Parts: sequence; structure tokens; C-alpha cells
Amino acid sequence: MTIGIKSASNVRSLKQCVPVTFNYDVHFTRGLFELNNPLLAQVLTAAGDSPKKVLAVVDAGLMPHQPALLDNLAAYAEFYRDALIFVQQPAIVPGGEAAKNDPQLVEQLHHIIDRAGLCRHSYILAIGGGAVLDMAGYAAATAHRGIRLIRVPTTVLAQNDSGVGVKNGINAFGKKNFLGTFAPPYAVLNDLDFLTTLDDRNWRSGIAEAVKVALIKDADFFDFITRHAPALVQRDMQAMQELIYRCAQLHLEHITTSGDPFEKGSSRPLDFGHWAAHKLEQLTNYNLRHGEAVAIGIALDSTYSYLIGLLAKSDWQQILNTLQALGFSLYVPELVAQLHQLEHPDYLFRGLREFQEHLGGELTLMLLEKIGKGVEVHHVDLLVYERAIALLQHHNQLGE
Amino acid sequence: MTIGIKSASNVRSLKQCVPVTFNYDVHFTRGLFELNNPLLAQVLTAAGDSPKKVLAVVDAGLMPHQPALLDNLAAYAEFYRDALIFVQQPAIVPGGEAAKNDPQLVEQLHHIIDRAGLCRHSYILAIGGGAVLDMAGYAAATAHRGIRLIRVPTTVLAQNDSGVGVKNGINAFGKKNFLGTFAPPYAVLNDLDFLTTLDDRNWRSGIAEAVKVALIKDADFFDFITRHAPALVQRDMQAMQELIYRCAQLHLEHITTSGDPFEKGSSRPLDFGHWAAHKLEQLTNYNLRHGEAVAIGIALDSTYSYLIGLLAKSDWQQILNTLQALGFSLYVPELVAQLHQLEHPDYLFRGLREFQEHLGGELTLMLLEKIGKGVEVHHVDLLVYERAIALLQHHNQLGE
Repeated sequence: MTIGIKSASNVRSLKQCVPVTFNYDVHFTRGLFELNNPLLAQVLTAAGDSPKKVLAVVDAGLMPHQPALLDNLAAYAEFYRDALIFVQQPAIVPGGEAAKNDPQLVEQLHHIIDRAGLCRHSYILAIGGGAVLDMAGYAAATAHRGIRLIRVPTTVLAQNDSGVGVKNGINAFGKKNFLGTFAPPYAVLNDLDFLTTLDDRNWRSGIAEAVKVALIKDADFFDFITRHAPALVQRDMQAMQELIYRCAQLHLEHITTSGDPFEKGSSRPLDFGHWAAHKLEQLTNYNLRHGEAVAIGIALDSTYSYLIGLLAKSDWQQILNTLQALGFSLYVPELVAQLHQLEHPDYLFRGLREFQEHLGGELTLMLLEKIGKGVEVHHVDLLVYERAIALLQHHNQLGE
Repeated sequence: MTIGIKSASNVRSLKQCVPVTFNYDVHFTRGLFELNNPLLAQVLTAAGDSPKKVLAVVDAGLMPHQPALLDNLAAYAEFYRDALIFVQQPAIVPGGEAAKNDPQLVEQLHHIIDRAGLCRHSYILAIGGGAVLDMAGYAAATAHRGIRLIRVPTTVLAQNDSGVGVKNGINAFGKKNFLGTFAPPYAVLNDLDFLTTLDDRNWRSGIAEAVKVALIKDADFFDFITRHAPALVQRDMQAMQELIYRCAQLHLEHITTSGDPFEKGSSRPLDFGHWAAHKLEQLTNYNLRHGEAVAIGIALDSTYSYLIGLLAKSDWQQILNTLQALGFSLYVPELVAQLHQLEHPDYLFRGLREFQEHLGGELTLMLLEKIGKGVEVHHVDLLVYERAIALLQHHNQLGE
């Protein structure tokens, strides 16, 4: 590459620097669609007075639990007609991972956006779990290069983690979030009242992300979670409110201060425990909730951290104890089923390569140095991971 | 909205601010894929040493004119094998607006990206006209939330305008760029040699964007274009090189300094003449090249600016003269065909609403105060626009 090279002086260059700042508020409220709660109307009219065009996209999973939701939305729009106009009936879309596995849903939303004449100053009001918010967010981000998205997360997971961040996405080619963009929302409206009707699995599932961020960033918060584990299991709303607020806050701080909010580098420090979690979701055909898979991923990477001498035994035990006190299972058969078939697509450790491929560049995993402090590594020892899995299996058998 | 309202003190809020900076270089070179030109290899290895995975996407329209292109690419990759690896044969895609009208092309690129295991640190090397760059850019931006895009624009239009900006997109629902994102490229490599094989229409077409940006921002540049119109018509490469460089530079400066690179507001100051241009492209089934339509749009909005007393007659005449000296037609029958059918989808003035809808918010059009200075307006008089069209028609008949 050094012989006979043209002088670089033949090249003229313009250096381009594009600074972009995205601002959005995450509000915590109750009774979001009650007529005496002006929050949504205020958020909409903050950008000018005239009534805004809004398309509501609603998670079908809410319907049995929130039978009055559609009526409440209609009444809200009627009462606050100076602030918003629903361009049509809410679009009801399947909840859970199904929302992200059917590419036609995005197309259908694009059709509605076109027919209704929504523009970049119109709003998608997405109400539901993280999967619905991700799918609706992707549709919003790609129509007219970005229609404003207001997220109303209705699960713990979405309120404290996925719903407050800057990503959207759907699955493709059997890979989670293969398609998507970085697109901060216009606003996030967290209504605690939605959590009262969650089933226990979904209530619990989202707590895993709080455990995750506490373990890598905030020992005091982990201590809070450990102390309040019984209250959380008993569905104490005050404890959950604090957990969600602090988790969302740590998440938002990380996005702002990481220096890489759109993940151009190889590192994704918040994704502790997530390489295995993503793969386990797929291997269990999404029978595991994301948070349930994250709990296992946390247990696995904490155990690995302990086995390589990075994490003290007492910290490791406290982590497993807290996860179990919260009601999480820390083992599924998919951890070992295909353990020794290196090229098999169901092989757990292919998840490492898929994790690396999705983000790009060098493999970068977060491990634990102690509770409250993560540390990044670029190489792992699969034999040690197998021992970690065996330990979790053993732990699981003892617990039964 | 003021009676019985809950106190806002019930709401806790977190304010989120996400600063993101995008840097990219626009290089001007010749013989980009000659073995003695290290530019591409240097751009790829600037981010680290190991050979980078690259998928080339090539405009089929280049094939007849650049018969050695694929061989040159292969030889380049062989010579610079420490810098890049093509993950497969280049993907040849239809050129021109066809690239943006077939949604399957984006899907096909996503398939290839998946199969080839491209990640966020891999590269799409898109070689072609603006439409191919837009389509490939959309595919790149949405896979893994953004694979790096290196644009190699091969037309005047793409080298001085669309290829250096921060947008991508495809058409849907009969609307130009209905789907797309804001996603700055990783780098832009402008190779003048590609221009030698352009037909006269494509050579000329891109000059319209230079006229546009000169008219709204830089009287000296417009004077340069006027003086060099004969040389440009005779395909003088030196004049074209200067025109492209200055046009790209003004474009890039605008993106950086506008304060709104991702167009969150209602204003799109660079889109002088574009509301009619977009509609005319559609009305002529894309038989008009984008630049040809822009020339007509410029003539129309300049004439309107003159008729409402904003623009001096001498400036107006100079604009029409320069456009005609460059070889542009300033009239097509589609300007009047459906003039009086207000609800007809082929009605030119529906383009005003579509322009507004695409961007969102208040209608904001750029008009001319004088050569080199645009001014934004929010209301237009369709009767005056009809007179402007009649003037262009008259002008056209005189010219025949």
C-alpha cells in the first residue's frame, strides 16, 4: 500500500460536523387519561396552540385489563379538543413480541399515517408494553423521516427501561431488533395506574432491569431493591414507584453522559446480562419475558464474574439471593440443551457473536467487579461459562 | 380546560437532553478505484486497522458506461486487502427513481446484510445516482439501527446536493420520500471521473441545485454560474468541478449552521423551488429528472416572487436567462393540465399541501428577495401562481 501511491494532495476535502440535540421529558403521573389530568394536553400544546393531530396505537394486551381505556381516550380528546384530535379510532395492535415479529404491522401504521395526513408535527401516541412502543416507534421514526412519538409505557419494563430510551425496532431474520433506528421520543408519560392490572410475571419482569442498572452503577439502589424485595413481591406501589423512578433516572443519565447515545462504538455498558438474555428469549420462543431472561443473564454473568475471581463470593450470593427473593427463576434448560454443538443455531454461545454483530466491532461485555460497579471485558472463556451454567443448574436443583 | 384540574405537583418529571454529534468528510478526487488512489482504503482504515467488511451496492445505470467498474472494484479490494473485504459480489440495483419505488430492494439489501453478517462497524459502499444512494442509505440506516454508509455519488446532482446531506429515503403511497430517516453518512467520496459518461440530461440536471442554492445564499456563486453557463453546456470539467465543490460546500454549511439539521421545525430553507418540483416529478411519472423539475420550480417561484413585487424584474429575467442558457426547459404541460380541479390528485397545487405535510407544521416556502437572498413566507396566492404559470407558458412559446 505504499508503492506508486498518488499524492493525497490530489484530494480536496470538506469536513462536516453536524451537532444535533434531542430534548424530551419523562413525566410520572397517575390517571393519565382522566379528565382532570391535563398533562397530555399540556405536552401537546407546549409546541403551539392549535389542536394537534394524534394517532393512538394501543397494545391489544391492555384491552381485557383496561376495558374503559378507549372510552377514556375518546372522552379525553373531546374534553381537551383544543389540544388534540384523534385522526381515527385507535389502532389496536398485538402486544408482546408478536408486535415486533410481524413486519406488516409497521406497514399498516404507515398506511394509516399516509391516509390520515399525519406530518412531522403530528403525534403517534403509543400506549402499551415495550414491544408495542418499539414497533410503533419504528413506524413513527421512518414515516416522513420522523413523526413525533409520545410513549405511554404500561409495563414496569417499559416505564423504567425500554420506554425511556432512544431506540426502537422490530425483529427480522430471527434476530431481535434487526431493524430499527435511534430516535428519541418527543415525550414519555409514565402512568403508574397501568401497573395495577399487570399479571405477576409482567410486574416482576421489569424489576430485572432495575437490578441490572443498580448492579453496574449504584450499590445504594441495589441495597434498596434487596430491602424492598418482599414489598415488591407483594406489589407495594410505593416501592415500585421509587424503583421505576430511580431506574429511569439512571438510564437517562447514562444516555446523556455516556458520550455515545447512538452507540457508534463497540460498547454498550447498560447491557449487562443481555447477551444471554437475548439468545434465551429466542431459544425459548419468547416464552421467557425479556426481564425474566435478563434475570437469568444477570445471574449467569455474575456467576461468571465470581468464577474468574472478579467478584467477591458474598456479592455473588447476595445477587442470586435478591433475584430469587424477587421471584425470578435463574435457570432454564435452554442454557444447556445445545451446549456442545458449536455450529448449531440454538447454541447459547452463538448469542455472544450475535451480540457482537448487532453492535459491531470488538466483542465488549460488561461484567461485575463488585455490586454497583461494572467492568468491560473483550474476551471470555467458554469453559468457565459452562461451569457457571452448571452452578446455576445446581443452585436451581437445590432450590426445588 | 381550567376547572377541576389536578395540581401539576402530582407529576414528577425528568428532563432529558441527548447531544449527538455526527462527523463526516466529503472528499473530492478522481480515479477513486484506481490502484494508485488510496483514498477509500484510508477512509476505511481510519477507524482501526483490521480489514473492514464492505457490501458494495451499485447503480445498474452505471453498467453500460463503466464496463470496467466491477473488475476495478475487485482489483481494488485485492490490492487493498488489508483495508477491506467485499462480503459478496456487488449488489446491482436499478438506477433512477425505480430504486426508490420498489420496497423489495430495501428488503433484499437487509437480507444480504443479515446473511453476510454485517454489523454497525461494517460498511455499505453505495455507488450511483442520488436515488440509489437514498435507497441504499435507508437500508443501511435501518439495519442494526445503522450500518456505516459510504456514498460514492456518480451524478452531478448527487455529488453537489443529495449525496452530501443527512437524509435517505424511498417513495411510498405515491409520495416521494415518504419513508426515510435522517442519518448522516460515514463519508462521501466524490469522483469527478464518473461525470464524463453522464448523458447531457443528467449532466445538466444537477446544475439546477447549484442554481437554487446560489439564488438563496450566494450572489457571487450565481454570477459564476451565469458566466460559466456556456462552458458548463460544453461540459467543461474545470467549471463543473468548481460548481460542484461550491454547491456542496454551501449545502454542508447550511446543514451545520441552520440549527435544525434534522428538520424538526417547519422550515426547509434549502428547498427553494422544490414544492412544485416534487409534484411535477410525480405528475410526469418521473420522466422529468429531479433537477429538470427543480429548474422549473425555481423558474415558477422566481416568477411568483417577481409578480408579488418581492423580486426585481431584472433579477427575475437574469434567472430565467441563466436557466435557459444552461439548457433547461422552464415549462411542462403538467403545470396547467389539471389546474382547475381542486380535489384532483394530479392538481399541481396539491403539491403545496403535500410539501407542508411532509415537513409538518405551518406552510413555509422560500421565495426570492433578490439574487442571493431568499425569504420565507407562510401564505401564497394561487391566483398569482396561475399568472406565473401563464407567464412561463408564454415565455416558452416565445422560445420555441
